[in-house]
Amino acid sequence: MLAHRLIERKRDGGRIEPGEWRALIGAYAAGHIPDYQMAAFLMAAYLRGLDRAETVALTDAMLASGAAFDLAALAPARVDKHSTGGVGDKVSLVLAPLVASLGVVVPMMSGRSLGHTGGTLDKLEAIPGMRTDLSLAAARAQLERVGCVLMGQTDEIAPADRRLYALRDATATVESVPLIAASIMSKKLAESLTGLVLDIKRGSGSFLPDLERGLELAHTMIAIAADRGCETVALITAMDRPLGRAVGNALETEEAIHALRGEGPPDLMAVTYALGAEMLVLGGAAATRDEARRRMEVAISSGRAAEKMQAIIEAQGGNPAVVDDPAVLPQAEACELYEAPRSGFVARVEPRAVGRGVIALGGGRTRMEDTVDPTVGFVITVKPGDWVNAGEPLATVFARDDAGIAAGRAALADAIRIADEAEHPLPLISHRITAAGATRYEPNDDPPAP
Amino acid sequence: MLAHRLIERKRDGGRIEPGEWRALIGAYAAGHIPDYQMAAFLMAAYLRGLDRAETVALTDAMLASGAAFDLAALAPARVDKHSTGGVGDKVSLVLAPLVASLGVVVPMMSGRSLGHTGGTLDKLEAIPGMRTDLSLAAARAQLERVGCVLMGQTDEIAPADRRLYALRDATATVESVPLIAASIMSKKLAESLTGLVLDIKRGSGSFLPDLERGLELAHTMIAIAADRGCETVALITAMDRPLGRAVGNALETEEAIHALRGEGPPDLMAVTYALGAEMLVLGGAAATRDEARRRMEVAISSGRAAEKMQAIIEAQGGNPAVVDDPAVLPQAEACELYEAPRSGFVARVEPRAVGRGVIALGGGRTRMEDTVDPTVGFVITVKPGDWVNAGEPLATVFARDDAGIAAGRAALADAIRIADEAEHPLPLISHRITAAGATRYEPNDDPPAP
Repeated sequence: MLAHRLIERKRDGGRIEPGEWRALIGAYAAGHIPDYQMAAFLMAAYLRGLDRAETVALTDAMLASGAAFDLAALAPARVDKHSTGGVGDKVSLVLAPLVASLGVVVPMMSGRSLGHTGGTLDKLEAIPGMRTDLSLAAARAQLERVGCVLMGQTDEIAPADRRLYALRDATATVESVPLIAASIMSKKLAESLTGLVLDIKRGSGSFLPDLERGLELAHTMIAIAADRGCETVALITAMDRPLGRAVGNALETEEAIHALRGEGPPDLMAVTYALGAEMLVLGGAAATRDEARRRMEVAISSGRAAEKMQAIIEAQGGNPAVVDDPAVLPQAEACELYEAPRSGFVARVEPRAVGRGVIALGGGRTRMEDTVDPTVGFVITVKPGDWVNAGEPLATVFARDDAGIAAGRAALADAIRIADEAEHPLPLISHRITAAGATRYEPNDDPPAP
Repeated sequence: MLAHRLIERKRDGGRIEPGEWRALIGAYAAGHIPDYQMAAFLMAAYLRGLDRAETVALTDAMLASGAAFDLAALAPARVDKHSTGGVGDKVSLVLAPLVASLGVVVPMMSGRSLGHTGGTLDKLEAIPGMRTDLSLAAARAQLERVGCVLMGQTDEIAPADRRLYALRDATATVESVPLIAASIMSKKLAESLTGLVLDIKRGSGSFLPDLERGLELAHTMIAIAADRGCETVALITAMDRPLGRAVGNALETEEAIHALRGEGPPDLMAVTYALGAEMLVLGGAAATRDEARRRMEVAISSGRAAEKMQAIIEAQGGNPAVVDDPAVLPQAEACELYEAPRSGFVARVEPRAVGRGVIALGGGRTRMEDTVDPTVGFVITVKPGDWVNAGEPLATVFARDDAGIAAGRAALADAIRIADEAEHPLPLISHRITAAGATRYEPNDDPPAP
């Protein structure tokens, strides 16, 4: 009766009260409400929307369905980053050890690749022996010892969200800003965070391509976090082209290791530093973003960030030698250069086409049950706006066999468009959003020296 | 993949093509699409709507999920009536034998009571021995012999509709005009009809209280039927008060038998004649509605309509003596008069309250699994607009015991409102809708004699 009444109310555009959200989510998690009723409710919520208070209440209800870290005694500041996901986005693998190496506790819970976007867990598991399925107790112990953990969402955290997400995936109710915000925040808030940085991707390769909806998502998540005392800053970053050069699990891990050693591609470093500066200021490890940036540069040049990565890998059963010698990573059987079919400007490197190419190579998932091949993928060395000559190498395809090479070449032919005119790519980092509002992003926040 | 794609399209307000409807409904009926995906689709369809072509295609798809009568060889004209349901609506029990007695084949498939509305099958089954669960083959044989059958929807007819209806009931997606229209018409069209008359109820006791939505439903069903070559006429009739005097299964059957013998209450006879006139004209048994009405009056006064009812009852295993002696029907253990608590005008006889009263007495259903007591109910002898004196009998309660009498009295106290001023009830029959459009209802269609 409860479910029917709430479906009806949401269908007609009404509000669900906090106690009703708790009852609904609690009953669903306990198996007392069938999937078909929840599916109808989700579609009504998708089409009718949730207001801010409803989104907070749904988040709280999903959070309450599971356990949570209690890290208050461990360190006064715990800061994490969340990205809405993209192609070539290996920022977490650089950022978490980098920020942790500067004394901020980073309890990072990540996901797996699905569809055209990659997932941090799959990239980490390319490292021989590396485990990401840690219990909350094991993760807590590692945080105490190492100051950082890179783990998957355990069964203990927000189980209602996991069931709901699987149902949304099957019922075309994923792309709803309040449902996305509540899903993400129910997991992030379980980490007992004092600060959170959001990387909201915009552009054709992102989950919510439209800037307006990205800003709406940022504002919604900031409000939910504020309700729980977790200060949150969001940056809007470009996903109209892949981030960095490598796309594919082991290839991205290798690129992240290079970045930790100061050899990362400029766009990857710029996004990492921008997000890291916010984390360090939120975590109290730097007074300003400029100071934070200088400290990060030192952490990288000194090798301290790379050492923290080694410690994390070692703690999670992986082979720490990978940080000094990325050749420890599994290697593709076949690789081949992809050359420019004509001269001109690189007009587009379409991230969805690249992501679908990784799936075609066996390195991604169309369903959660699929297994991924860590070795396959692309290294794309050109960016939109570059001039290229016919026959010049644009990328390398890494595949299992000749059929994979052919599939990879076809994907690149689809993804990389060369034209007579350059197109304007999106600004790499365009907006910064805090509880006070959204402003155009400026990397420096210090007043000029007198 | 198909289901996800179609959910997404309908969610975004797009159209589903006829081949896609067939694939969707076929896969659902075969168990290849889970209920949760169909539930999300139904909510999207509820909120986004279906256009006329989509509604026709959905009807065809549900019809195609099962078997159908093939009656073309049996008689050139087959005509049925469908009512959207109400309280005290025993028209089918009078109309079917009456029209069949005048030579039109009536393959009538009916439903059971649910919620505050009654169901023809429950009323028929009050007759000792009467069976309504006929196979298509048995029903066809009876149509050939008797020209009329009064049966339930068999498992063979539109099984996809039955599954979908149960899912809609659980997911608050029932009250959608295109979904209602497709559900009704998928069953009616399986009867191989050449003509159909719709009784669309309006007012507080009806399924769609609002006139506008009733008209929309009529237009939609007429268009679906036209697509299949079944000419359809709809009348809008009043359901702001019960129809006739009796409410409750055996009590209504008794009233219907009286009506077949020319002793029916005026409102029941008026609606029966109006619908019957349309059926006889559609069935070719009368050239005009006036002629049809005269023929019906003769069929009743001559006893021919009552004889047809006897033949139908006998063919379906019931005791035909009931037509001559309604005391053959099961009788309530207890009965008591309900008197006017004050003098005044009868302002309202609220049909939903009366229908809920029948449920409280054990004569209705809140769930399909409930069994019904045929004996209980009410005979309400006053109509809105009547002047009554305090202490004057307004109704009789028929119940199982003293507790039932008390519950019945409470229901009547709630349902019958006496006030200083009379209210204006809805016109008994207000609109007539054909493929050409809707007009105000006029009982006579003949030009005046010269």
